[in-house]
Amino acid sequence: MFPQHIIARKRDGHALTREEIAAFVRGATDGSWADYQLSALLMAVYLRGMTAEETALYTDAMMRSGTVADLGHVPGIKVDKHSTGGVGDKVSIPLAPLVVACGVPVPMISGRGLGHSGGTLDKLESIPGFRTDLSLDTYRRQVAAIGCALIGQTKDLAPSDRKLYALRDVTATVECIPLICGSILSKKLAEGIDALVLDVKFGRGAFMKTPADARQLATALVNVGRAGGKRVRALLTAMHEPLGRTVGNALEVAESIACLRGTGPADLWQVTQALGAQMLLLGGAAADVTEAEAKLQAAVSSGRALAKLREIVAAQGGDVRVVDEPERLPQARIQVPLPAPADGWIADVDAMGVALAALRLGAGRARAEDKVDPAVGVSGLVKMGEKITAGAPLCVIHANDEAALAEAKAMLGRAITVGDVPGVPPALIGELIG
Amino acid sequence: MFPQHIIARKRDGHALTREEIAAFVRGATDGSWADYQLSALLMAVYLRGMTAEETALYTDAMMRSGTVADLGHVPGIKVDKHSTGGVGDKVSIPLAPLVVACGVPVPMISGRGLGHSGGTLDKLESIPGFRTDLSLDTYRRQVAAIGCALIGQTKDLAPSDRKLYALRDVTATVECIPLICGSILSKKLAEGIDALVLDVKFGRGAFMKTPADARQLATALVNVGRAGGKRVRALLTAMHEPLGRTVGNALEVAESIACLRGTGPADLWQVTQALGAQMLLLGGAAADVTEAEAKLQAAVSSGRALAKLREIVAAQGGDVRVVDEPERLPQARIQVPLPAPADGWIADVDAMGVALAALRLGAGRARAEDKVDPAVGVSGLVKMGEKITAGAPLCVIHANDEAALAEAKAMLGRAITVGDVPGVPPALIGELIG
Repeated sequence: MFPQHIIARKRDGHALTREEIAAFVRGATDGSWADYQLSALLMAVYLRGMTAEETALYTDAMMRSGTVADLGHVPGIKVDKHSTGGVGDKVSIPLAPLVVACGVPVPMISGRGLGHSGGTLDKLESIPGFRTDLSLDTYRRQVAAIGCALIGQTKDLAPSDRKLYALRDVTATVECIPLICGSILSKKLAEGIDALVLDVKFGRGAFMKTPADARQLATALVNVGRAGGKRVRALLTAMHEPLGRTVGNALEVAESIACLRGTGPADLWQVTQALGAQMLLLGGAAADVTEAEAKLQAAVSSGRALAKLREIVAAQGGDVRVVDEPERLPQARIQVPLPAPADGWIADVDAMGVALAALRLGAGRARAEDKVDPAVGVSGLVKMGEKITAGAPLCVIHANDEAALAEAKAMLGRAITVGDVPGVPPALIGELIG
Repeated sequence: MFPQHIIARKRDGHALTREEIAAFVRGATDGSWADYQLSALLMAVYLRGMTAEETALYTDAMMRSGTVADLGHVPGIKVDKHSTGGVGDKVSIPLAPLVVACGVPVPMISGRGLGHSGGTLDKLESIPGFRTDLSLDTYRRQVAAIGCALIGQTKDLAPSDRKLYALRDVTATVECIPLICGSILSKKLAEGIDALVLDVKFGRGAFMKTPADARQLATALVNVGRAGGKRVRALLTAMHEPLGRTVGNALEVAESIACLRGTGPADLWQVTQALGAQMLLLGGAAADVTEAEAKLQAAVSSGRALAKLREIVAAQGGDVRVVDEPERLPQARIQVPLPAPADGWIADVDAMGVALAALRLGAGRARAEDKVDPAVGVSGLVKMGEKITAGAPLCVIHANDEAALAEAKAMLGRAITVGDVPGVPPALIGELIG
């Protein structure tokens, strides 16, 4: 089976066989296909598509291209959450301890953020000492011991995806549902989970711009995940303005801790609770959403969720005092409020604009090799529809560099609109798929 | 202009701009695009197509990626011929001296054969001493001196095509009309010609299988060539059985010489004359086809065409005695007839079957790095519709290897069908485009 014959079959619109898909994924893993052959097939898949069956075979082959973690020794239904990513999306950090505190194990292997803001790993690593580079063995032991581990992708997990993702990024083949499904699910299915809740975001701050696009992706993800033998549901959520009132790694950790104390922003809690409820349902810890929400609230008010976070931080070498003294998190040298230019209402907060300002401050990566600055970002961000008086802060900017501060100020000034009428963001929680 | 943005534009079905096409071709030439980016765009072009304008811009950029030969010092309208390739297609060898003998300069830069049989260069190099690796300067001087040079592609001629052609071959993006146009015409337009006659072959022994496909390619080639400021016509010709009665490098040179003596096979003369007539018309050496054909016939009967071949062979270092004593060409160690299995009619001669037998004997290349054996092949090949008696030769096999001989015998036995009724090949000369 020459690569060019398999490429030609997809080019001509045929569905690839299990053997052809296996040859392609093996070619990506062991280098037996040249990069230019991989990218030609990726483009053919982008333009010709893949059937549901091909997508499932592709995902399965990607998953099996590396180690598949076995969590058979951990009792209970293991449930993870994956988000397609949004601005200020720190949900994993409060969600994991919260769900574990309700009795459902949460093994979670996350990626690093590429793009506007840091990923979950970058946020967690702002906790002094916190390590995310645990081996799969340590991960397995920690999930068994405390019900949760929050680690980074190891080299042996779906290596074909690392190769193909890097190629897709530079060959204009990222925005392709079968390829996205394979990339997301191959890694998640290799974690050793039984069930998965997907947060598929839509809106100007998300990868999918419309609810219709998000629904299409969510449906494909649910179908492929189920073909892989997992219980899968997807929740569509809006990404119009940033989630919560902070963007930036340490600032988001502090907000996550507040969320587990019951003092976080309403929208962050709303998304965390909605996803958590689905995780409890899939994990068999609640019979319906009402019961699940009550359990989640009890885990917060009893302090059990916060205690679980302390356990996780301690287990992964982090400074556990941070949970009760968030001021121990890295602090930016410069912290200045951005004053509102006039009395009025917050008419708009553009998630992407805020993200780019945070990126300019150093909170994210423009290129994979960039380092993130854990301390910088914005906090106290206003929300659409709030009333504001001239001079009151639209947000506080945390910076370590005067030039970046000046640029971020201007960018935030453009991203936040004060007007005569309150802005109304779309409903945060959308459709449940599956 | 990032490569991935240009790739994305073609992926989404847009026509690329002059600047985008220039960036792509420059990227292929100077390595500023990675191979995987080139191949992703090639696949996008394959599936999304190119407009006539894009194809012309692409061809022009490819031509300008290297040296464009200037033949301004050569008086007259310089005309070349290009064939899309067929089995036993040695037409260039008799055609060039024939047309030059009629007063039209023929500068001809040819490729090497990849596939079933050798290319024009391989055939010419079977003449002892004949050199095709002349520099562009020598080429220019020789065209000025004797009206013709038959050389190989130099490194500085359309280098982007060399890069892209190699990639297309291994990424299933060969059969794509805009890319074919760019590849053929960028090299031909860089020769310094004023006019071009294209022999676009159709049939089972050709790249284009049907007259309709050949017409589509011919029309595109004519349009793009004209957009490049050249006078261009294309003739569709059938490639059902091999052209002439020989396949194999030295054997085809001998048959070409016979053609210039007026003793070659009828079909070879028919195609040579038809293409030659168009060249004389474009070159201003005849007012109509009748006059052109008369001039071509006179060049043969007067011996002027053969004399021109002697001049060319001499100028390029070849043993000029070969022209009068073709037995000086390399001879295979084994020469055995293939006897007809029964009395009857030649019902079929499958060009591709004969080509694969010749390839097995060593006359062509399976891979670019293979060497061709100048001596091997088949001669005295029967033509469809001829009468045959049992035991009379279907052809003579020229081999240098017993194992190859045995296999080639079996292959030729399958390629040539003796039946109860004479086979009727399609009309050799088809439509004239342009």
